[in-house]
Amino acid sequence: MKITENQIAHVNKTSLPFHKTSYDYISNTLSEKGHDIKGIIDKLANFQVAIPSWALGAGGTRFGRFSFYGEPSNLEQKLEDVGLLHALTQTAGAVSLHIPWDVPEDYNAIKELASSLDLKFDAVNSNTFQDQKNAKESYKYGSLSNSSEAVREQAIAHNINVIKIGKKLGSKALTVWLADGSTFPGQSNFQSALSNTENSLKEIYKNIPDDWKLLIEYKPYEPNFYSTVIQDWGTSFMLANACGEKAFTLVDLGHHLPNTNIEQIVSTLMLKGKLGGFHFNDSKYGDDDLTVGSIKPYALFLIFNELVYGMEHNPQNPDLAWMIDASHNIKDPLEDLIQSLEAIQEAYAKALLVDQNSLRTAQEEHDVVRCQEIIQEAYRTDVRPLLEKARLEKGGALHPIAAYRALKVRDELLKERGKHTQATGL
Amino acid sequence: MKITENQIAHVNKTSLPFHKTSYDYISNTLSEKGHDIKGIIDKLANFQVAIPSWALGAGGTRFGRFSFYGEPSNLEQKLEDVGLLHALTQTAGAVSLHIPWDVPEDYNAIKELASSLDLKFDAVNSNTFQDQKNAKESYKYGSLSNSSEAVREQAIAHNINVIKIGKKLGSKALTVWLADGSTFPGQSNFQSALSNTENSLKEIYKNIPDDWKLLIEYKPYEPNFYSTVIQDWGTSFMLANACGEKAFTLVDLGHHLPNTNIEQIVSTLMLKGKLGGFHFNDSKYGDDDLTVGSIKPYALFLIFNELVYGMEHNPQNPDLAWMIDASHNIKDPLEDLIQSLEAIQEAYAKALLVDQNSLRTAQEEHDVVRCQEIIQEAYRTDVRPLLEKARLEKGGALHPIAAYRALKVRDELLKERGKHTQATGL
Amino acid sequence: MKITENQIAHVNKTSLPFHKTSYDYISNTLSEKGHDIKGIIDKLANFQVAIPSWALGAGGTRFGRFSFYGEPSNLEQKLEDVGLLHALTQTAGAVSLHIPWDVPEDYNAIKELASSLDLKFDAVNSNTFQDQKNAKESYKYGSLSNSSEAVREQAIAHNINVIKIGKKLGSKALTVWLADGSTFPGQSNFQSALSNTENSLKEIYKNIPDDWKLLIEYKPYEPNFYSTVIQDWGTSFMLANACGEKAFTLVDLGHHLPNTNIEQIVSTLMLKGKLGGFHFNDSKYGDDDLTVGSIKPYALFLIFNELVYGMEHNPQNPDLAWMIDASHNIKDPLEDLIQSLEAIQEAYAKALLVDQNSLRTAQEEHDVVRCQEIIQEAYRTDVRPLLEKARLEKGGALHPIAAYRALKVRDELLKERGKHTQATGL
Amino acid sequence: MKITENQIAHVNKTSLPFHKTSYDYISNTLSEKGHDIKGIIDKLANFQVAIPSWALGAGGTRFGRFSFYGEPSNLEQKLEDVGLLHALTQTAGAVSLHIPWDVPEDYNAIKELASSLDLKFDAVNSNTFQDQKNAKESYKYGSLSNSSEAVREQAIAHNINVIKIGKKLGSKALTVWLADGSTFPGQSNFQSALSNTENSLKEIYKNIPDDWKLLIEYKPYEPNFYSTVIQDWGTSFMLANACGEKAFTLVDLGHHLPNTNIEQIVSTLMLKGKLGGFHFNDSKYGDDDLTVGSIKPYALFLIFNELVYGMEHNPQNPDLAWMIDASHNIKDPLEDLIQSLEAIQEAYAKALLVDQNSLRTAQEEHDVVRCQEIIQEAYRTDVRPLLEKARLEKGGALHPIAAYRALKVRDELLKERGKHTQATGL
Repeated sequence: MKITENQIAHVNKTSLPFHKTSYDYISNTLSEKGHDIKGIIDKLANFQVAIPSWALGAGGTRFGRFSFYGEPSNLEQKLEDVGLLHALTQTAGAVSLHIPWDVPEDYNAIKELASSLDLKFDAVNSNTFQDQKNAKESYKYGSLSNSSEAVREQAIAHNINVIKIGKKLGSKALTVWLADGSTFPGQSNFQSALSNTENSLKEIYKNIPDDWKLLIEYKPYEPNFYSTVIQDWGTSFMLANACGEKAFTLVDLGHHLPNTNIEQIVSTLMLKGKLGGFHFNDSKYGDDDLTVGSIKPYALFLIFNELVYGMEHNPQNPDLAWMIDASHNIKDPLEDLIQSLEAIQEAYAKALLVDQNSLRTAQEEHDVVRCQEIIQEAYRTDVRPLLEKARLEKGGALHPIAAYRALKVRDELLKERGKHTQATGL
Repeated sequence: MKITENQIAHVNKTSLPFHKTSYDYISNTLSEKGHDIKGIIDKLANFQVAIPSWALGAGGTRFGRFSFYGEPSNLEQKLEDVGLLHALTQTAGAVSLHIPWDVPEDYNAIKELASSLDLKFDAVNSNTFQDQKNAKESYKYGSLSNSSEAVREQAIAHNINVIKIGKKLGSKALTVWLADGSTFPGQSNFQSALSNTENSLKEIYKNIPDDWKLLIEYKPYEPNFYSTVIQDWGTSFMLANACGEKAFTLVDLGHHLPNTNIEQIVSTLMLKGKLGGFHFNDSKYGDDDLTVGSIKPYALFLIFNELVYGMEHNPQNPDLAWMIDASHNIKDPLEDLIQSLEAIQEAYAKALLVDQNSLRTAQEEHDVVRCQEIIQEAYRTDVRPLLEKARLEKGGALHPIAAYRALKVRDELLKERGKHTQATGL
Repeated sequence: MKITENQIAHVNKTSLPFHKTSYDYISNTLSEKGHDIKGIIDKLANFQVAIPSWALGAGGTRFGRFSFYGEPSNLEQKLEDVGLLHALTQTAGAVSLHIPWDVPEDYNAIKELASSLDLKFDAVNSNTFQDQKNAKESYKYGSLSNSSEAVREQAIAHNINVIKIGKKLGSKALTVWLADGSTFPGQSNFQSALSNTENSLKEIYKNIPDDWKLLIEYKPYEPNFYSTVIQDWGTSFMLANACGEKAFTLVDLGHHLPNTNIEQIVSTLMLKGKLGGFHFNDSKYGDDDLTVGSIKPYALFLIFNELVYGMEHNPQNPDLAWMIDASHNIKDPLEDLIQSLEAIQEAYAKALLVDQNSLRTAQEEHDVVRCQEIIQEAYRTDVRPLLEKARLEKGGALHPIAAYRALKVRDELLKERGKHTQATGL
Repeated sequence: MKITENQIAHVNKTSLPFHKTSYDYISNTLSEKGHDIKGIIDKLANFQVAIPSWALGAGGTRFGRFSFYGEPSNLEQKLEDVGLLHALTQTAGAVSLHIPWDVPEDYNAIKELASSLDLKFDAVNSNTFQDQKNAKESYKYGSLSNSSEAVREQAIAHNINVIKIGKKLGSKALTVWLADGSTFPGQSNFQSALSNTENSLKEIYKNIPDDWKLLIEYKPYEPNFYSTVIQDWGTSFMLANACGEKAFTLVDLGHHLPNTNIEQIVSTLMLKGKLGGFHFNDSKYGDDDLTVGSIKPYALFLIFNELVYGMEHNPQNPDLAWMIDASHNIKDPLEDLIQSLEAIQEAYAKALLVDQNSLRTAQEEHDVVRCQEIIQEAYRTDVRPLLEKARLEKGGALHPIAAYRALKVRDELLKERGKHTQATGL
């Protein structure tokens, strides 16, 4: 299934008058306050977030998984799904493949398909947290950190293979998320595990092309419940420094201990030129992988405030690889992703409205009350008309969820794919 | 496979001299301080913990499951496994069935098998957190709390059916763990969900035999990540009160928010006569379901201190249903359970060593330093010889893990059962 | 100092045109969607939050306190401060006294002063967490829970005295926040402490007039760092039930363990008719007592969503005593309180915009995506013009912070009071 | 007051027979298992922990402070107190001064006094979290990170002054704990604050003598409740690297977010040669500053396990500055410190009992069960007789708390000092 611009334009029709009223109001109001509305709309339009290939089917928990129908059952269908998302939202112009779940069979065909859907291939992801069929070695006790050289070599080789696949597709980054760690005190020698990981990453790094980035993810716990080798940004940062200038830290919003000030981590990494990638999701308890913005939208805004600041002030930091990394246990994955994309754009738009000059002055005067007023002024603004405008100008839907439903996308997919398909992934 | 007393006696042989020395030392020392060693040994010997039928195979996380060989593939083999545990430890004299994973086909045969292994059937557990094959209604959006009457009725009927099965086996309690809740703000009407749950539990309660208990478990999150209907002890306690005097709260150690003072909850519930059951495990981050005592043994001791206090001072509170509720992702499940049983006995023994009279006096004198000394005096004592003695007198192994390995139990099971069996469960 | 309506009207003048534009836009938009704007404005106008007498001076941490000038140094000046707040915001029409910090000397004079400022006396607060000069007994080891009868009696007598003071002022509720607990395992006998507390509260309850409420606050930790006698809502609820129908639970936003779902607690208590009071503040780590809405505004909105639901559907629950309970370590306390009042009104207004009928339908259809859309639709609306309108109609300031600064209130107070005053309190 | 060896020997007398029995038992048992008891006793005897000069009076919380009598009211009396501790425990052979609370008046006299009590001067601590009387600039909005150059310069000068004082006393390290941060989102520019801090630390570092260490402490929150400039080990480590090879990270046990795996942080820092100091305390909720080992003794043991490993395997890491950093709100500070010292020695002794060779083998074989057995074997051993022996050989008390009480130390101090003294500090 493919959604045409005409279909979208048709669905948009009835909402256009209200959009116009609200957009005029907000753009006038903001322009009067000195904001460059056109610049903001352009930035929103240019902000593209990758969809991971494993996020298009229903997710589950360790307690099971409830069935969902019409899932994509191969890579083509996954690209098709992302294409639908992008057509509606105009902000999902990239796909991030997970290897070995989504190894293309015919690279040219896949690249053409992606291109026809206006999709790029963003970072490729390796997987050494599960055993692959017929693999010689098991990752039960770790991969890049394993005390067994044979296991480490298998894991390194897998990562190098993922780079090769990524090169064929035009990806420019490898994301390494390592589940390595231990579940019980004493199980693992922390120092050996860290040294092994550092050495393994250096081996992989040798294979990183010059125009690529190696993105090193961190996470404090799960699936290991006592320790994780790369437990926090400090460890990832240290490892990235040890690898070299093409290695960076990747921040996943859900990979932090309770109450962590994530925006400060983002800020520090950008100051030091080492923030390379960003995974969006939301959570209340742990790595809950919920829809972006569904639980802590203000925290997301504060993080975007730092991202915007860094993008404007830190030339030492590279462009970031943005990706949604959520699980869809009880919602239609495509609807869930649309809600996430909307929340990301909203936070970005609000961050763009922060009056940085006034804020700087208030900070220097230690006028704490005023600082808060400035920040909240931006956050309290209803920016939805700006998001609509950005989508509209690129041919997207004013209200993507409504359009998705009006066009009966899931029914259509269900018809095409049948009921009992299941996407590869978790 | 079955382990004979002779086999155990044989394995014990070489360790006996050292046991004797250490037991003599500790029993003399403690006797001199006024402890009733025989009474303590008896209490340890009588303390029996149920093994749940789903805990005998390898567990997993949402990221996957690593293979483990020689798992029991039917209820008979599960009982056999518990029988092995009990033979070695003499403290696992009960089994707790999970329905529908373990519905007996021939009740008499199963009861005879259990009896031959010296095992009782403890609380039966219902399951409304997963959809069963051919079930008419889905629990995707809740069971006893569901806004749909049809779903609630199916869930109630299932629980009533579980009671029936339990009655045939001689169980005396039904444990209800409800995964019901919501994953996103707004998804569920809290008040309706709670009222529905209360009414559903009352329906189930009507079918609770007079000599049974209804045990209501609570949990703050997972598999739902925004809210859980029975989120804390307060909600469970309120529901148990609403049901009646045969309804009680069940505490699972892993089902609490970070930093919760669990021992105080235990104490309150026993004072009010409403603590009915207890699930053992350990955790560092969330409901990690790790080996008992592997992360926070002192907290376990403090909890046992309250349990012992309650068992001695609160006749208003019934006998408790004790169960291990852990997951075994990277250890041999039987070895893991042995380590859990050992840790439980250790905490219990240390709690029995707390000098309650001196403590009471110190508390009343607000001699905080002395209170701590008294508590730590008990905790710092090495009670392993007492545990060995308790096992030895009942024909168990001095060192159950060592005996398990010396007797090559897993190899034997693997031979009998083959490699590719898999236990039902999570 | 007193602010006149004229002064405010004068300050409002320049902002009126913009207010009118934005109010017209939002009221039209919302009216078209079916909202009763007048009804919402009325509700906002009627929503009054008490200011505690101890919140008008600078707060501190255990590491010290930084000086702040122009603090009120007696009860009259404190009322004057609340009067200023109320004049500007029109939502601070009540004051909550803390005894013994603020015992009136001349009741009639104080009542007249309050009346002239349009202020009521809301719940009175007792203090048994600090030793008072010349007190016979010390609360170092607890008050209502103390193992010493003499201490308990002193604490009970103090509470009864606070009721007497409250009666003279026209208060209708006593708030009991108990710091009682223990700092080390073993220090306190949980069951005795709880029983003593229950009995002490019952003694106090006997003195609660028929048209009063006894509000029982809970808190998991601090200033005691191992246990708190009334550690959670479940304990408070149990104690309130034990006391009788005039006893209720009081929820303070900062008094919860990490990640607690507070909105669900609010919902449960209102369903059971036992939510009596509410203390506003915000926090990131513990009981940080920050400006309301400064950290988690969405959580505040979700809580208000339940409060609004309860106020509309739970006649069994009484009217609530609302109070701000924050500490002002680095901001001007009056400015801080204005920001808190604004955030409360904002959350309330947004909660009033939730389309309850559509939400109910979506919940019953398990349309989780739609539920989230409905909730977020309300939250994303910029309601500031509605708040302005509600204030404006009652003679308040369109922009209270701006007005406070334009009128140079703090300078004025500093002139009147001198530099080195210090408010009683923490 | 000074305690003589004779007094201690006299008090020890009655406990000697039991000590001998238990020591013989444990040393025989452990020797048979291959442990070098003499080596362990020597290590315990050589392990000396500094007592901070501010820890000798009663502490408090932001809710107040309860009176305690007989506190030291000047530096001489503080040294005297540490001398008493050291006489009894033989493990408190150092004092850590806090400037400006404890600036010596007569350096020679103070050094002689310390020497006579067998005390060394360990790391000196600066204070830029409180305003000093007559200081020109205020630290209300930060010190080394402040956007005001004048404030930063004052803070740098203070630190340089502290180094000077330390040099006169023979200290070899400066500990910088920075309360700098922000309480509200937007209040501070993270990047400027971090850069300012880095530059300020570099200025201070220039004044660090060649045989000194600069110890950089981190803490996630409190007294600032939104952000802390040096929020975690990663930031401290980054700053230490930026300063140079004499700069190190200092770990305070209480300065972590919930559930942090501290032992892994310790391990990483030692591997990288950057762990310079360690502050002991315990906590359940936040930076509770409780008696060491009173809440999570197993975690303390696991941390010591890494410390011992690092001390044996990481020549790249320097000797550590050990200090107790606890607050004494409801216990006699000296008794509290004795309990802390005992808990430290206990954890250290148990860590020394870990069979590192067997552990290494089990780790390499991925025998997780065995790893846990080895770790727990050490932890479950009752090592108190070893601690007694180590103290006894150096002339200390077998049971320091009992001796402290038998010698009526506090009564004596109260007599000498009078009731209403108060120690400087928090």
